[in-house]
Amino acid sequence: MITLADDEKAIASAIKQLSNQAGSHSPSIFTIAEKLPQLEIKIDACFLSNSYATDLVLEDFRKELIHTNKIKKVIEFYPSQNQVIADVLSTHLNVPARNIFIGSGASEVIQAVIHNFTTRKIIVNIPTFSPYYEFVKEGIVVVYNRLDPQENFNLNIEKYIQLVEKEKPDTIVLINPNNPSGGYIKLSDIQYLLNRLSWVENIIIDESFIHFAYEDENYEIKSAAMMIENFNNLIIIKSMTKDFGIAGIRAGYGVMDKEKVGYLLRHGHLWNSSGLAEYFFRLYVSDKFQREYEKSRIRCIQESRHFFSELATMPGLKVYPSMANFVLAELTNGATSYDFVSKLLIKYGVYIRDCSDKIGLDGEFVRIASRTKAENEIIVDSARDVLQNAWEYKEVSY
Amino acid sequence: MITLADDEKAIASAIKQLSNQAGSHSPSIFTIAEKLPQLEIKIDACFLSNSYATDLVLEDFRKELIHTNKIKKVIEFYPSQNQVIADVLSTHLNVPARNIFIGSGASEVIQAVIHNFTTRKIIVNIPTFSPYYEFVKEGIVVVYNRLDPQENFNLNIEKYIQLVEKEKPDTIVLINPNNPSGGYIKLSDIQYLLNRLSWVENIIIDESFIHFAYEDENYEIKSAAMMIENFNNLIIIKSMTKDFGIAGIRAGYGVMDKEKVGYLLRHGHLWNSSGLAEYFFRLYVSDKFQREYEKSRIRCIQESRHFFSELATMPGLKVYPSMANFVLAELTNGATSYDFVSKLLIKYGVYIRDCSDKIGLDGEFVRIASRTKAENEIIVDSARDVLQNAWEYKEVSY
Repeated sequence: MITLADDEKAIASAIKQLSNQAGSHSPSIFTIAEKLPQLEIKIDACFLSNSYATDLVLEDFRKELIHTNKIKKVIEFYPSQNQVIADVLSTHLNVPARNIFIGSGASEVIQAVIHNFTTRKIIVNIPTFSPYYEFVKEGIVVVYNRLDPQENFNLNIEKYIQLVEKEKPDTIVLINPNNPSGGYIKLSDIQYLLNRLSWVENIIIDESFIHFAYEDENYEIKSAAMMIENFNNLIIIKSMTKDFGIAGIRAGYGVMDKEKVGYLLRHGHLWNSSGLAEYFFRLYVSDKFQREYEKSRIRCIQESRHFFSELATMPGLKVYPSMANFVLAELTNGATSYDFVSKLLIKYGVYIRDCSDKIGLDGEFVRIASRTKAENEIIVDSARDVLQNAWEYKEVSY
Repeated sequence: MITLADDEKAIASAIKQLSNQAGSHSPSIFTIAEKLPQLEIKIDACFLSNSYATDLVLEDFRKELIHTNKIKKVIEFYPSQNQVIADVLSTHLNVPARNIFIGSGASEVIQAVIHNFTTRKIIVNIPTFSPYYEFVKEGIVVVYNRLDPQENFNLNIEKYIQLVEKEKPDTIVLINPNNPSGGYIKLSDIQYLLNRLSWVENIIIDESFIHFAYEDENYEIKSAAMMIENFNNLIIIKSMTKDFGIAGIRAGYGVMDKEKVGYLLRHGHLWNSSGLAEYFFRLYVSDKFQREYEKSRIRCIQESRHFFSELATMPGLKVYPSMANFVLAELTNGATSYDFVSKLLIKYGVYIRDCSDKIGLDGEFVRIASRTKAENEIIVDSARDVLQNAWEYKEVSY
């Protein structure tokens, strides 16, 4: 058992309250810092990003926008319209601009797709990223497909196809790798699913974490975006927040049938990118940035692998296999996720995600993000400390 | 007549093409600079903003974000959710946070309102800001109420009420001051309209230019936002782009019934503000910024007044009365808006808005934004030059 002292209990309960106010998402570290100034958050391991890539973006930002004072134009004037930025992305993605829809964060793309194209029924695998069922409007049926912990929360493809054929939804969602479980579907399996389910009107594949996944030692990114040529029911949704560590910029995009892009743009979404988002997209496609980013991406993957293997050695913590930059972990020694998360935050300044609000998870689960090498070491040491104390306490109390 | 030389004709036609691609909006100066590098745009008088306020924001931005390196957090981490930022605005607006909906630019608020609450019929006064009819979905009836040039494009309130009573729409839109005509409806008349039309489900009042309007020499802002307590069908939409000259940040908000805000937030719009937008909203409500901003606002109003009166003296240009930071002007000597806009841009680097794509305007209209004092002087001199030459040419050709 993890025991909280009385003062820790008070803080833990205040954090819980903030979490409740934030709905099915963790409160931001700014909100926590504002409401609980006595807490010192040293590491935000709730936050899913490649912070090496953040450094790359910031370096260019200082050089190109601040030192040149181009920032004035970026702040003062209207950024380009949606299709102009789509055009910037087109060559890099190897997808025609008419198939690209730019969003102010992936969440705008999710919202646009689900509000406009889902008209009857959606199947969502759980545990999942909550907007996929929260953004659904009244009258739409949500079918939850519970991923099996016995199968490491991986998608069982044949069972899934059977479910889809039975339920006949107009929309299905696959997050690949999945958030929060980290489970990955190989590109060949995606293709197999697309072939088998060609009658489903909208097949959403959320690739927000695909830059962290790999199928061989080349670490090549296996996006399904190019398959849009062959499957007009395919909808790729991509956040730039995770791989580039730029949540504050709000940048994302979708790849979908050109009729869908046209429909969305006829009714809005014209100036939904900020000047900084446009700057970022232009930076992102540049060869120089790509070369540097690729190094940071592989570094991030390798360090995440090492981090996960360290976490897996801890007593009382079951770590599920992940192809993302985070792991889902289960507390197996009677400790609650509430106590574990609270202790880590209050005593060590390490903020991880309590998954007790995630539907589809029975038990005590947390999600831990891989951060920089130095930060990961602190997370490992702190978690080991908390779990070891819990274990010792347990031995004593028997 | 304004005559374009052959090389000017070629450029004018290329600009026209860019305009067509940009739909019912002017192409951004970035797009023009990219596609027509031979053009030198010195003054963007298409762009509606208070550039003194831009300077204030930029000054604080450098001091608070760049010099302190807080910019890293603003770019890297998630900004606060919609309701947290609404809470920041609440005291300043004297409106409860539950009535405030934050948007990534006013255009997101327009889109959210029209997509979610307009279900049958909308009345739009023309000329207008085009998203109010463009964002409307298939199946919704749009009724255009043509403002009368004989009445200086001002709203005739009794005639308007008759029209609304006849058409029985669920949504009506009043832009106050109106874009592009600059016409203003006094706060007491707004209140009268709200009382008479209490049965209309959605009364949208777009106050994006209200900071430039005034009713007496105190220059007090006369927003209808506080009336939300008494009229739950009232929907105020407010862009921050114009008064603060920060189009690239994408910041706007709506004030509406709490049930409407709740509905929108249940289905999305949670992380629609960027880090810079949140930074701006927090800056905006600070006393120090408000004091400085108020000076810049009054300066902007006074300089605009002077600018409009100068333009009004020009032969061949009829300037309509405006309470915004721009004027609608009509070419009355046979010159076309196409030639006037092209000549100003190509020969003088002054970019103004050709209104030939605006529905509800029969004739040759342009919209000219008031910029800084120095820029306004150049605009006046250039316009006078173009019109005087046109006039002389005309005299000769008779």
